[in-house]
This record gives sequence, C-alpha cells and structure tokens, in this order.
Amino acid sequence: MGPDHLRKLLARVAAGETGVEEALQSLETLPYDQLRDSELGYARLDLHRELRSGLPEAVFGSGKTIDDLRGIVTRLLEANGHALVTRLDSDKARALVDEFEGAQYNERAGLVRWGGLDERAGRIAVLAAGTSDLPVAEECAETLAFAGLRVERQYDVGVAGLHRLLAHLEEIRRADAVVAVAGMDGALPTVVAGLVTAPVVAVPTSVGYGASFEGVAPLLTMLTGCAPGVGIVNIDNGYGAAVLAARIVSRANVD
Amino acid sequence: MGPDHLRKLLARVAAGETGVEEALQSLETLPYDQLRDSELGYARLDLHRELRSGLPEAVFGSGKTIDDLRGIVTRLLEANGHALVTRLDSDKARALVDEFEGAQYNERAGLVRWGGLDERAGRIAVLAAGTSDLPVAEECAETLAFAGLRVERQYDVGVAGLHRLLAHLEEIRRADAVVAVAGMDGALPTVVAGLVTAPVVAVPTSVGYGASFEGVAPLLTMLTGCAPGVGIVNIDNGYGAAVLAARIVSRANVD
Amino acid sequence: MGPDHLRKLLARVAAGETGVEEALQSLETLPYDQLRDSELGYARLDLHRELRSGLPEAVFGSGKTIDDLRGIVTRLLEANGHALVTRLDSDKARALVDEFEGAQYNERAGLVRWGGLDERAGRIAVLAAGTSDLPVAEECAETLAFAGLRVERQYDVGVAGLHRLLAHLEEIRRADAVVAVAGMDGALPTVVAGLVTAPVVAVPTSVGYGASFEGVAPLLTMLTGCAPGVGIVNIDNGYGAAVLAARIVSRANVD
Amino acid sequence: MGPDHLRKLLARVAAGETGVEEALQSLETLPYDQLRDSELGYARLDLHRELRSGLPEAVFGSGKTIDDLRGIVTRLLEANGHALVTRLDSDKARALVDEFEGAQYNERAGLVRWGGLDERAGRIAVLAAGTSDLPVAEECAETLAFAGLRVERQYDVGVAGLHRLLAHLEEIRRADAVVAVAGMDGALPTVVAGLVTAPVVAVPTSVGYGASFEGVAPLLTMLTGCAPGVGIVNIDNGYGAAVLAARIVSRANVD
Amino acid sequence: MGPDHLRKLLARVAAGETGVEEALQSLETLPYDQLRDSELGYARLDLHRELRSGLPEAVFGSGKTIDDLRGIVTRLLEANGHALVTRLDSDKARALVDEFEGAQYNERAGLVRWGGLDERAGRIAVLAAGTSDLPVAEECAETLAFAGLRVERQYDVGVAGLHRLLAHLEEIRRADAVVAVAGMDGALPTVVAGLVTAPVVAVPTSVGYGASFEGVAPLLTMLTGCAPGVGIVNIDNGYGAAVLAARIVSRANVD
Amino acid sequence: MGPDHLRKLLARVAAGETGVEEALQSLETLPYDQLRDSELGYARLDLHRELRSGLPEAVFGSGKTIDDLRGIVTRLLEANGHALVTRLDSDKARALVDEFEGAQYNERAGLVRWGGLDERAGRIAVLAAGTSDLPVAEECAETLAFAGLRVERQYDVGVAGLHRLLAHLEEIRRADAVVAVAGMDGALPTVVAGLVTAPVVAVPTSVGYGASFEGVAPLLTMLTGCAPGVGIVNIDNGYGAAVLAARIVSRANVD
Amino acid sequence: MGPDHLRKLLARVAAGETGVEEALQSLETLPYDQLRDSELGYARLDLHRELRSGLPEAVFGSGKTIDDLRGIVTRLLEANGHALVTRLDSDKARALVDEFEGAQYNERAGLVRWGGLDERAGRIAVLAAGTSDLPVAEECAETLAFAGLRVERQYDVGVAGLHRLLAHLEEIRRADAVVAVAGMDGALPTVVAGLVTAPVVAVPTSVGYGASFEGVAPLLTMLTGCAPGVGIVNIDNGYGAAVLAARIVSRANVD
Amino acid sequence: MGPDHLRKLLARVAAGETGVEEALQSLETLPYDQLRDSELGYARLDLHRELRSGLPEAVFGSGKTIDDLRGIVTRLLEANGHALVTRLDSDKARALVDEFEGAQYNERAGLVRWGGLDERAGRIAVLAAGTSDLPVAEECAETLAFAGLRVERQYDVGVAGLHRLLAHLEEIRRADAVVAVAGMDGALPTVVAGLVTAPVVAVPTSVGYGASFEGVAPLLTMLTGCAPGVGIVNIDNGYGAAVLAARIVSRANVD
Repeated sequence: MGPDHLRKLLARVAAGETGVEEALQSLETLPYDQLRDSELGYARLDLHRELRSGLPEAVFGSGKTIDDLRGIVTRLLEANGHALVTRLDSDKARALVDEFEGAQYNERAGLVRWGGLDERAGRIAVLAAGTSDLPVAEECAETLAFAGLRVERQYDVGVAGLHRLLAHLEEIRRADAVVAVAGMDGALPTVVAGLVTAPVVAVPTSVGYGASFEGVAPLLTMLTGCAPGVGIVNIDNGYGAAVLAARIVSRANVD
Repeated sequence: MGPDHLRKLLARVAAGETGVEEALQSLETLPYDQLRDSELGYARLDLHRELRSGLPEAVFGSGKTIDDLRGIVTRLLEANGHALVTRLDSDKARALVDEFEGAQYNERAGLVRWGGLDERAGRIAVLAAGTSDLPVAEECAETLAFAGLRVERQYDVGVAGLHRLLAHLEEIRRADAVVAVAGMDGALPTVVAGLVTAPVVAVPTSVGYGASFEGVAPLLTMLTGCAPGVGIVNIDNGYGAAVLAARIVSRANVD
Repeated sequence: MGPDHLRKLLARVAAGETGVEEALQSLETLPYDQLRDSELGYARLDLHRELRSGLPEAVFGSGKTIDDLRGIVTRLLEANGHALVTRLDSDKARALVDEFEGAQYNERAGLVRWGGLDERAGRIAVLAAGTSDLPVAEECAETLAFAGLRVERQYDVGVAGLHRLLAHLEEIRRADAVVAVAGMDGALPTVVAGLVTAPVVAVPTSVGYGASFEGVAPLLTMLTGCAPGVGIVNIDNGYGAAVLAARIVSRANVD
Repeated sequence: MGPDHLRKLLARVAAGETGVEEALQSLETLPYDQLRDSELGYARLDLHRELRSGLPEAVFGSGKTIDDLRGIVTRLLEANGHALVTRLDSDKARALVDEFEGAQYNERAGLVRWGGLDERAGRIAVLAAGTSDLPVAEECAETLAFAGLRVERQYDVGVAGLHRLLAHLEEIRRADAVVAVAGMDGALPTVVAGLVTAPVVAVPTSVGYGASFEGVAPLLTMLTGCAPGVGIVNIDNGYGAAVLAARIVSRANVD
Repeated sequence: MGPDHLRKLLARVAAGETGVEEALQSLETLPYDQLRDSELGYARLDLHRELRSGLPEAVFGSGKTIDDLRGIVTRLLEANGHALVTRLDSDKARALVDEFEGAQYNERAGLVRWGGLDERAGRIAVLAAGTSDLPVAEECAETLAFAGLRVERQYDVGVAGLHRLLAHLEEIRRADAVVAVAGMDGALPTVVAGLVTAPVVAVPTSVGYGASFEGVAPLLTMLTGCAPGVGIVNIDNGYGAAVLAARIVSRANVD
Repeated sequence: MGPDHLRKLLARVAAGETGVEEALQSLETLPYDQLRDSELGYARLDLHRELRSGLPEAVFGSGKTIDDLRGIVTRLLEANGHALVTRLDSDKARALVDEFEGAQYNERAGLVRWGGLDERAGRIAVLAAGTSDLPVAEECAETLAFAGLRVERQYDVGVAGLHRLLAHLEEIRRADAVVAVAGMDGALPTVVAGLVTAPVVAVPTSVGYGASFEGVAPLLTMLTGCAPGVGIVNIDNGYGAAVLAARIVSRANVD
Repeated sequence: MGPDHLRKLLARVAAGETGVEEALQSLETLPYDQLRDSELGYARLDLHRELRSGLPEAVFGSGKTIDDLRGIVTRLLEANGHALVTRLDSDKARALVDEFEGAQYNERAGLVRWGGLDERAGRIAVLAAGTSDLPVAEECAETLAFAGLRVERQYDVGVAGLHRLLAHLEEIRRADAVVAVAGMDGALPTVVAGLVTAPVVAVPTSVGYGASFEGVAPLLTMLTGCAPGVGIVNIDNGYGAAVLAARIVSRANVD
Repeated sequence: MGPDHLRKLLARVAAGETGVEEALQSLETLPYDQLRDSELGYARLDLHRELRSGLPEAVFGSGKTIDDLRGIVTRLLEANGHALVTRLDSDKARALVDEFEGAQYNERAGLVRWGGLDERAGRIAVLAAGTSDLPVAEECAETLAFAGLRVERQYDVGVAGLHRLLAHLEEIRRADAVVAVAGMDGALPTVVAGLVTAPVVAVPTSVGYGASFEGVAPLLTMLTGCAPGVGIVNIDNGYGAAVLAARIVSRANVD
C-alpha cells in the first residue's frame, strides 16, 4: 500500500465510506507501499531508495542474465534518468554500453553508469595499498562520482614503503572522509586513521594468497586496528564503502 | 624530536649555527616528535591525539595494574583536565573513583570518566538489540557524552519484534549518525540502514551462545548486510564506534 | 502507536477532527504499536507474542541480575498468570522459587516455570543421545510441558549402540514431532529421520571435547545429514527446539 | 530380508519346518529387508521410502553420469510412475527430457520431474530474499509441487527494504509453513518468524561474496536468530527444506 | 526385546500360540534387545558390549555427578567384576576409590579401574612426544592394561630431538601396534610410521599454545602426514586410541 | 650411506684400514643409506619401503608431468616388477596404459596398476555410504587388491536408510578390518563400529555441499564418533586407508 | 619531498629566504621523499629499496597485465640494469623473455630474471619435502641466485623417509641459513631445526589435499614446531623466504 | 648408543672382537646416542643441545609440577651451571627463586634464570607495539640476555601513532636483528621491515579482544605483510623469537 492508496483510504474514512475498524484492520497488515508498479517478476526495484537512504539503488550485475540487466536498466533510466551497474564481466558490460546511450564504462572496476546525481559539496580521498586493489578502489571512486561527489585518488600507498603514503598526507588530510582499500595485511587504514581526523572507511580486498585467505587477513587487521575512527565494510565492497562515505559527507554538508 | 626541537633546529640553521647537510641528516632519521616528556616507562601517552584525530586518547583499562592506571590518570588529568578509562573491573574502578575526585562511574559499561570535552553540535542515536548488549552500548554512549555529543538511547529493539524498532523510528531518524549494537544474529544495523539516511555504525557483540561464536555470527551478518551505508567496528568495541560516530558528526557540524 | 491510538486516530479522521494529510504523516513514521506500558527501562516485554507466534515469551535468564529477573517475573505473572525462565544458575533459580509461589524448578535444565498454557493435543518425542545431553533435552521437554504439550522422553539412545534406539522405535513413531538432541558426532537425528515420518527437530549440543569444537561437529553433521525432513536449531538451544516443535504440532492439530 | 522373507520364515517356524534356534540366528544378523531387487550395482534405490518418510526418494543428479541417471529414472518410473531429479546441469537435463516423456524442466532450479504425488491439503509460502536466491527457492517450490502441495511464492523480499516484505504479510500469514531462503546476511527468516505463527524453515544460500563465506554468514545468522520457531537446513538445500515443510503440513492435515 | 524374548516369541510361533502376522508386526518395530534391566534412568548400560566390540564399556566420568558414578560403578562391578572410569577430577576419583575396594588410581591420567580383563597376547608401544602429553598417554596405557594387553611406554621422544626416538627404535619395532601421542606440531606419528611396519594409532593432544589451537595443529599434521599406515583419533582421546589398538592386536592374535 | 657402504666401512675398520675415530665421525653424520642410485633428480624413490613399512611405495600422480610419471614407472617396474599410480586424470592414465604393458586401469578411482604383491591371508570389507563416494572407495579397494588382500565391497549403505547396512551385516562382520568411506554427515563408521568387533578405518570424503565444507563435516563426525575402535585418515585418502588396513591384517595373519 | 627538495628548503632557511615557522609547517606534513619520477600511474616503483632493505624490489607478476609488466620491466632495467618478476604464467613469461634480452626463465617457478646482484659471500641450503613443493622451492632458489648468493638444493627429503634427509645432513649443516619448504604435514623445518645450528626459514606450501586446507596444516605445524630457531613466512612465499635468508646472511657476512 | 658406546663398538670391530655383520646390525637400529644418563623418567634432558643448535635448552614451566621443576633445574645447574625457566606462575617462580641461589626473576615475563652464556657480539632490538605486549617482549629480551646478547628495548611503538616508532628509528636501525612483538592488528613488523635492512622476527601476541581471536589476527597480518624480510614465530612465543634472533646474530658474528 503506497502513499496514494493510504491517502485514498484515509479520504474514504474521512468521507465515511470506510469504517474505522475496517481501516484499522488493513493498516495493521499492510502498513507499507507495495510498489506493485516496480515489480519485474524477478526483481522488485526500490525506486524511492534515494529518498530513504541518500543514494539511488545500484544494480549488482553478478549472477544476473543480460536480459535481466536490460529490463532493469530500461526501467531505471525511465524512472530516474540515471543508472549504475556494478560487478559486470566485459561481455555484459559491452552489451549494455552498446544498447543504452550515454554509458561510461570503467573496465577495471567492471562498472557501467549512465549519468548521475548533481554535483554536491564533499570531497573524499580514495586510497589503495597496491596496484591489485585498483578494481575495488575504482568501484568505490566511480560510485562516488555517480553520487556527485569529488574524489581524490591516491593509489599504491601501502605501508611497506611508508614514504609513499606520507608524501601525500597533505592532500589526504583535506578530505571530508577517507576510503582506504587494502588486501594482503590490510594495515593501511589503521596507519591512515592515526594521521587524519576525518572518518576512515576501510575496505579489505581478496587480493593476496596463502594466509590472506581471500580477504580474511586484511578484514581482521582492520577490525582490530588500534587507531579508532574506522568503519569497515565487506571484503571487496567498493560500492558499500562509497555509499557509507557519501552518507557521511552528505550529513557533513547538509545538516 | 618534537616541534620545539624542530623549531630550534631550524632556528640554528637560520642562524648559520647548523649546516644544511647536518640538519638534513638528522631530519631524515628523526622526522617526528619523540615526546620524551610523556614517556612513563610502561606507556607513551599521546597527549596531542585530540589535535590529530578529534578525540583525546582513552585508556584501555584491561590488563593494566592499578598502579599503571594511577600513573596514567594522574598524568592525563594534569595535562588535559579530563580522562576516560574503559574496560575496568569494579575493584579497579572503585579504587580510581576513590582516589581521583569528580569521577563518573558507569558500572554496566565498566567505564570511569572525569570531565569531558565541551558540548558541541551533533546528535547520535545509540541502539541496542537486547538487554545483554547494554554494556557495549553504554561504553559507546558514555564515550560520546565524554566527547560532548548528545546521545539518544533506544535499547531492546531487536528485529525479532520489529514493532519495537518501528515504534521509535522517528527519533532515530533525527540523529546525525546511528550506532547499532547487536549480538546473536546481528540483523539490527541492516534493518536500520534501510530505514534511515544517516550513516550507521554497527557494533557486533559477543553476547549469545552456540553458533554466535563469541560475536562472529553478528560480525558476519553486519559485513554481508545488504543495506549499504553501514561501517562495522570490532566485536564489543563500543568505544571505537563512539569515536567513529564522533568523527562523522564533527565533520558534519564543523566543516 | 498501539491499536488504541490507531483506532482513535481513525475515529478522529472519521469525525473530521484530523485531516487526511496530517493522519497520513503520522502513519508513515509510526505504523506500529509502541507498547509503552510494557517498557521496564532495561527490557521491553512483548506481552502479545503469544498471539503473534503461538507461545508466550520466555525469559533468557543468563546475564540478567536477580533484580532484573524479579521485575520481569512480577510483570509476566501479573499479565499472563504464568512465566518461564531459562538458563538460570542455582542461586538465582532458588531466589525466584522462594519469592514467587507455585514455581516448578528443574535443576538439570536450569529452568523455572510458574503454571503454563492449557493442555492441548499434540505429542512430542524428545530424544537425547547421551546422559550429558540431558540439560538441553530437559530445557526442551519443560518448555513443551509449559506449552501444554505431551512429551515422550527417550534418553541415552545414541547411534553407537543402535539397539537402544531401535528398541523404542514404536513409541517414537507415534509422536507428531520428534526432537533429537545430540552432542559429539550428532548422528542421531539423521538416523531417526530415516526411521520416522514426523518432522524432526535437531539440537546439537556443546557436549564433547577435542574435535567436537563446542558443538560445531554435531551441528555440521546435522546440517549435512542425508535423511531429509530435519530442521536444525542453534547449539544447546533446547528452548528454540521446543518452540519449533510446538508450532509444528499446533498447526497439525488446529488447522 | 524383506517382509515377504520374514513372513515366510515365520510361516516355516509355525509349520515346524524351521527350528526356533535356527530362526533366531538368522533374525539376529538380518533383521531388515535386503531389497536385493532394487540394487543397480552403483546405487540401491529405496522404493519404500514414500511409506517410511512421507516423500518418494529424489535423485541427487550432481556427480552422476548420464548413464547412471538413465538407469535410475527408468527404474523409478517403472516402480512409482513419477520421478524427481535435482542438481542437473542443462546438458543432462535436456538428455533426460528428450528420452523420458512427460518431463517438466525448471532450468533455474536445475530440476526435472515426471508427474508427482496427488494434490493434498497444505499450503506453503516460499520466500526468497534476493533474485540470486531463486535457484534454491525454485528447487524448493518444485519439490513441494511434486509432493502435491500448494506453493505461494514471494521473491525479492529481503530485509534491507522492509516494506517489500510487509506488503505481502497477509498472504504469508495464511500459509501452513513458511520456507525463507536467503543468502548474504540471511536475516529474512528471523524477521519473518517474528511476524507469523507457522513454523519457519530457513535455507541459507551460498549467494554473496567476501564475508558471506559461501553461505556461512547466513547460516550463522539463522542459527542465532532471536525469534524462535525456525528450523534450519543445509546451505542451498532447497530440496531438504521442501521435505521438512511437507512433513510439517502432512502431519498438520493428516493426523 | 532381548534374545530371551525373541526365543520365547519364536517358541510361541512354533507352538501355534502366536500367529505369523502378529509376530511379524512386533519383529518389524522391535528387532533388537531392549535391555530394560540395565536402564538406570539417566543412563543405559551396555553390558554386552564386550561381546560385540571386544572391550567392556568404559565410563566417561566428565560431567557425571558422584551419585551417577556410584550407581554406574555399583552396577558394572556386579555385572562384570571389573570397571574402568576415565576423565575424573581428583575429588570424584578419591570418593570412588574410598567406596569401592580394589581400585587402582592413576592421578595423572584421571582414571580409576577395578580389576580388568585376563592377560592376553599382544604388545603395544605407547609413545608420547613431550612430558605434557603424559595424561593422554597414560589414559591410553591404563586402558590397554585394563584390557589385558602388554604396554611398552616411551615418553618424551618428540622429533625436535630425533636421537631420543631413534635410540629406542628397536623396542618400538617389536610392538604389534604403536600409539603415538603428540601435541604442538604433532609430527611424531608420521616420523614413527616411516620407521616401523606395525599400524600406528595417532593421538593429537590439546597441549600447546597459540597456533596449536587446542589440538587442531597436531590433528591436521597427523591427518596430512605423508607416511601412510596411520589411523587418527580425536584430540586427547587416549581411551579411543587404546580401544583401536586393542582391536588391532586382538585380531592379530585371535583370528 | 647404504648397507653396502656401511658393510665396507666396517670391513675396513676390521682390516685396520680405517681408524676408529675416523669411522666414528662419518657414522655420526651419515647414519643412513643415501640410496643415490634411485635419485631421479625430481624424485627419490624409496625402493626399500616394502621392507620397512609393509607395502611398496605408490606414486601420487597428481601434479606430476607425464614425463615424470614415465620415468618413475619405468624405474619401479624394473626394480619391483609391479607399480601402483593413484590420482591420475584420464589422459595421463591412458598414456601410461598404452606405454607400459599389463596395466589395470580403474577409471572411477583414477588409478593404474601393474601386477601386485602375492595373495595373502586377510579380508577387508570396504563400505561406501553413497554412490558419490565410490572414487575414494575404489582407490582403497584397488590398493588392497594390489597388496594381495581380499576385498569385500558394500556400497551405498549410508545410515539414512539403515536397513541397507543391516542387511549386509553378516558379511561385514566376517572381515578382519573394515574400511568405511563416507561424505556428507560421515556417520557410517560410528554406526559400523558399534556393530562389529574388527578395527574400523574411517575415510571422510569431500562429497557434499554447503556445510560439508569439502569434507570437514564428515571428518569431525568421525573424530567425535562415540563408538571407539575407529582410526581416521585424511579426507579422500582411500590409499592411506588401504595401507592402514593392510598393516592391520598383515600383523593379524603374520605375527 | 625528496632529499633534493629538503636540501633546497634548508638552504632557503639558511639563506633567510624561508622563515623558521614556515619551514616547520611544511616539514610536519611532508617529511618524506615523494619520488614522483618513479610513478607510472598504476604503480609506484621503489627504486631505492635496495639501499633501504638489502634487496631490489621484485615484481609480483600475478594480476598485472602484460602492458603493466612491460612498463615496469623497462623502467627497472633502465634504472638498475637487472629485474626479477615472479608469479608469471607461461604466456606472459614468454612475452617478456621475447621482448627483453638476456632473460633467464625458470618455468617451474614461474619466474623470469635479467641479471642480478654481484656474487657475495653466504651459502643457503634450500630443502623441499616433496616433488610438488618444487615451484615454491625454485622461486626461493632463483631469488637467492638473483641476490648473488650461493644455493645448495636438497629436494624430496620429507620426514616420512627420514634417511633421505639424514643422508645429506653434512651438506645442509654447512649452510649459513636453511630454507625448508614443505606442504602436507609440514614437519620438515622442525626436524631440520633440531639437527642444524643455522637459522631456519620455513615455507609452508599449498601442496596437499583434504585436511591440508591449502597450506593451513603445514603452516600450523611450522608455527607450533617444538624446535626453536625457525622463522615462518606466508604459504607458498618462496620469494619472501629468499629475502629473509638474504638479509640473514648479509648481516652474517657484512657486519 | 652414545659416542662412547659407538667408539667402543668400533674398537671391538678393530680388535676383531665383534664381527662386521653383527656390528652392522646394531648400527642399523641404534644409530644415535641414547643419553640414558639424562633421563629423569618424566623428561629427557638434552644437555648437548647447546652444541647442536646454538642455545642451551630452556624449560617450559607451564604444566610442570614444582617437583618436576626442582628436579630439572637441579640437573641443569649441575650439568651447565646455568638454567632458564619460562612460563612460570608467581608461586612456582618464587619457590624456585627461594630454593636455588642466584636466580633472576622477571615477574612480567614469568621467567627465572640462573647465570647465562658469556657475553658475545650482536645486538638485538626488541620492539613491542603496546603495553599489554610486554610479557611476551620481556620473555624474548630475557632469553636474549641469557644467551649473552645485547638487547635494545623499544616499547609502546604501535603504528596507530607512527611518530612513536619513527622517533626511535635510528637506534632500531643499528641492531643486527629486530624482534617486533604485536597483538591486535599486528602491523608493526611490516612497517618496521620497510624501514630497516636487518632481518625482522615477528611475534604475534594473544593481546586483544573480539576479532583478534587470541592472536589469529596479528598472525595473519604478519604472514601476509607486504614487506619481505620477516620471519614469524608462534603466537606469544617470545622465547622462540629470541632463539631465532640469537641464531641469526651468532652466524653474523661467528662465521
């Protein structure tokens, strides 16, 4: 039951067409919008998410067929005029790029986007410890760009060669939020959080071998890091890091 | 080498008393403040942390002797006029409360504090899924109070009885950041993040038994939660959640 | 906002005292009952759970102070006339038994109850693989008795001596649902599910040593058991097994 | 030794053709039906399982050769007139569909079935948290259909957008049992169990990445969920969930 | 239904007192001995196990009350004239030693026994890698002595000082089976299996710290050891190792 | 330094050609046969293993190139007249079969052998819980056949349909040792060990999905099984189980 | 800010062109060399590492495109006259070998190198337990050769056939450091450390199956090994072992 | 068979008193010294370890009775004139201190020593990340002092406040080997290894809570650290780190 239905129900109550008890009963079991118009059968799009949570819904491309993706992108472009699809292999990415005009394709990130939100205040530094962490870092940076935010990239600044990080400290300190992406030992966010005052979003990556256990090692490092002020997201979750950072700077610049 | 030493070195260079190459050499190996005056032998206090990272250093009480704690608290009160000690058993807590005037002791949280930072803008909702999560939630809430921030507590709002959470949604939505503390299945932050637009800080707790594995279950739930906009901290780390939240709202209200 | 508030709101709309848009706004943020009258500060009792989920709320005693427990039991006995408290050490159990009349105390199960639901149709076999599994099995059996159901106990029937199980097969087959409690290798539920047609609820226990890893071994055994028709609950969760079994037989005898 | 052999043995004892001690000896070592007539060399079909456990045996297709599958399906169709094969890749599925008439092939579920049991009372709601959980949910739904039960599908109702679930609560509440399928954080079954009175069967899926660890995260979430009344099955085990649900509703409608 | 009942049933069939169909029915559900005379309420003793599996049942003392233990020992001494109780703390051990005459108490092993089986052929070498592994090694050695077998002890022969093991190789090679007990790295059984031709029973112990993870490290070492001919038992399971070794030498000397 | 070298050294000492101290020194650092004649560069064949450990060395085919395998098989056939190669994919297997006459190839087991040891006393039952466990069971059975032992195969006798196992109990009880191979829940060896008096060798397999975790679930089940008398080997290690069983029956029939 | 910039800054201070406070400020945020001249966009080469840590940087080939590799190798050969690339599949390896003259390609190790450091004192024994451990052992040996050190290879000396190791003890004892590479049970380094006085570097490998869990078993064995004097590196990390060994012998021969 | 026995045997061969074949036979089974004179029953002391591995044996006090410890210390002081006992609780430590003259007791480290080796060249920096890591760091430092090496302590230099480490870099760089002790995130050794050229020995500690999992987090961090030149030892193994460091500097200064 959407706002319109609710409004109509209340109007009927006001008009005496629906009794109080009858209205009460339907309200108890159906307090929320069913959004039937956005149900595609295989997916229920959440077109109002931008209002509810600050960023429009992104499409997680992995495991969806090209037909699924076509249907969803069509629907999103109609409804919002912009769309963001992550975790795409190059075949599906190219098919979407060919079919829907105005696409921006970032191959390293496996991400395609059409348009985006209006530019807004807020500047986010995205750091990557090593070259192999770039796909995750770029997924984050592109999502932030889609959200209208300014991104400062600093890549290959892992702590094994501390001078590389320290050399760029001034730029990093200017950011409203810092996203630190790191695989292997994942020590970057802890070191960074000890050097800046902004909130740090830490993204462990599955980059590494042996005892990195597909990202478990950097995840644990980040969780146990002794510098407070760090919020961790799932392994390889560049998109999630971007949304958290976007929420942080939105509050910072709006409230 | 602290700022003073550095200043003196530069002054000597300016005065021609120290040659360029000589100064260069000492700068290369000692670029940072040694802070010798704060070394207690068993601990090096970081009295400038407030400037660097937005919150003064807290003392992690667990594993320190009462003598260690006395020495550190004495030093902090002298230097800052306020102090915060976490993870204290009741014996040590009471000894400190007796010895140092003006203590506020929160027994459930195992935390003692003297004074705090000046009140500042920013309001943080602290949610706890169950009664047993209160020690962690209170550690967070007290740290925020110490940092001069306003705290809105909402406890026992776990998702098994969804109505308890939904009943307080309006208050929660008014917060600049939400901290959600949950043990067992840890589903609370995901559900909350789908309902608010503020950044959500998620704290898994070791509350539970069996397959909760001392907090692993809620930790994984939070990391894999499908609502983005959530930053996770270590299991039972109420203090870390507070610092992250404080950084978030500080940026929101200062920048 | 509880049913009463909702009813009053709708009545005001029907009476024209509240406008449609105004009503709409409050409904969007407060669709559920706040149940303020049951908030004790440290816990929110869910007195309507019996209606919603088929069994009244039980109190998880572990980690609650004796004062917390007194407050909750007082409130439950007033509201429902019966109460069930699990996971009690003997000190707290005895304190409650002394204070509130009519208690039944099962020491092995660490459980106290006052009264219970009316007897109803449905018979549940509770099996335990070994003597050390009895605390969990008894927590289950007592909860079922509290729920008004008939319990058939069969203990020490582990699969290492198959004849002990087979000797009681006839009684077990008569049950509407079977709860199988087992630690160590946890093979009992799989073997039972191959011999009966009723749904089987499997409870792994933390009984064992070495590679049983506090219940992980029987948990995995049960999850991978090749006889279908088994639903698993958390390690040592006798209470949860009882609620699932109660839901099963309630449907069996009511619908 | 099957019932027939046993009957003959007893008849021979009654007729004095076999001595008591001789009969005793063979009974001690051979108390059960050998079912030699159903042994295919590589597999022993259990054609009486329908009588023993309420559902006919399904064939787990994974790891069997097309020749194995042909032999088994031939035998099952002869004996029962219906057959169900799960976990089939599309090549084997199509080969079976081509060879044996009357097949119904559900590609997403990787499942083929011929006929099924007669329709019977009982209605089961099958919920899936996300689109990627559909293969598991469909394996469950098809198995239930094969068992003659009515299925109510509700897909893409994960808890990150709670309104999607709440919008369909009324239909879900009408079911005799609810199967909730979820990957990632796996919070769906807990939330559902707090909203309905029917038993809930929870199926974690291996959908996800990073800290979902191939289904471990949702498995732990479900095991530790604080709403009781939930029985968990193995990761991705849609078939097992269906059998448990079928046992539940069979008892509900037969006893 | 025990052999006597079965014999009587068949006699009644032979005598025409019981019909074939009636006998058939009771045989189908009760094919095994119910051993009702050995049920103590909290435990079902398996007095015939010696016949079935080569060794009399041992009592696992951990988690049983002193009253439980008294009841079981009384019953075992009456039935068998001997008894073996493992995993006893010193209080319970002493209570049993005081009450039942003829006890032999091995404090390091936490084991008490009364009498034992007659001496029989077969000689088993029990090796321990370090001094801290002695409790487990002694549990094994005492159980073997109880079973009437000859034990050759070789302790503190871990592989970090290979000469200690090699110095005793001749004695070890004379054994019919070798039990190798080791914590920490658990490398002893692999090295031994490369030096002898007898079967090796490997027992990992929980001795160690850090990455030994309560016995996981030696368990994995033993499972992956590249010298074949080794059978592993549970962590700290000296009793189980003894039973396996006893079965091995019994076959060696009887068949 | 092999026996020949050692003999020569001692002869030189006896002849006064080598001094005592000189001999002493070389003995301290070179106490064992260097077997230089069997070093192939990439592998050191252990042609004397048959004498030392009761079975000739098998070649672990996995990860070796076809050229490596050719070299090793050539050498083994020359030295011993028989050879056994395990873990071969079909391409390499066929290449070896084509090149070296007299091969017996078991495709399901991925194993090729030429000849074998002379037949000897001893009979081993090899049990498999399910059809998918056959590759491991066959690796075991073929290795036993190679070792000259009699094998009794009983496949698809998992505990979910207990009658299948009980129907063959008599044959199984006649064996000198029982190998029980099982994936999924791995309950078979425990149940078997409760029914026979021979030693049981348990082999967990990686067959299964979800919570079987590539064989961890059956491994833990077997380690914690409450019927003693079971020795466990590595996951999927049919070869190791055969060697252990062969050692057991060799002792049984030789000593 | 590199040494040159720093020198210039100090010169400006000395010349009075820059004030003390101004210089102080820039020193606080930029204490290290930015090395801008070595930034390739996708990677920041650390050309001074040889000075800082004793070995030139190696290029980790895995996950880099052939274009990335070409750029990096070009740059390294220009700057240093030598280069080392590890973890290359054969396609990329051959492309580099074809393009850049003077390459030495070790296919088993997946490693290409051009030139190397001058020969220096120090001799390192590299041991491998089995043939399958050779890729890791060769990565180590080649890196050592690149570093100008002498390597003594001893392969296939696992502890299951102890004589193979003991036969080469004399050579091994002559080394300044020993690298022991082992998969499966990983017992080799412990045994070796008990026999030599040099430091032992232990490398677990992912060779094995079942309970070796991709190298976890040998890693734990090595960490818990009871012979002290062993330093462990990551699973399969032949390169890291070489660098540690090189640092050890460099100190041994330089200081 | 010790050197003396061996010498006598060879003498007898030289004298013609023992035949070659007879000598051969005893050499094959007893190639090593039995050291019978050092067997205490519960422990075999390895008094020659100093010769073999560079450091005298230390006594691991944990799990030994005060009587065991007395016996061992008596024997060691007699044989070597010095002794080192680690992991002692204060009761046992004080008992030993009282009984054996000349003890040095380090309470924080739980370690007592009598005398030590002669001072020798070599200087080792021992770093600890936090105050709670001191027990492990002190165990290391005391063992090094016992071995006659010079120790440079630098405590509380964790990477969350990088300036504390950088301030002491010069002293650290002068060491021949660096031991870095760290719990929680364990990032210290990686950062240090990027700043020095000496070998780094990394010791993870069990200090921390939540996701540090008793030392697993820092262990994984150290194993996956991207700065090569680091050798890791077991969690909390300060003693092992000292022995490795001692071996390193012994080679550095002796060879």
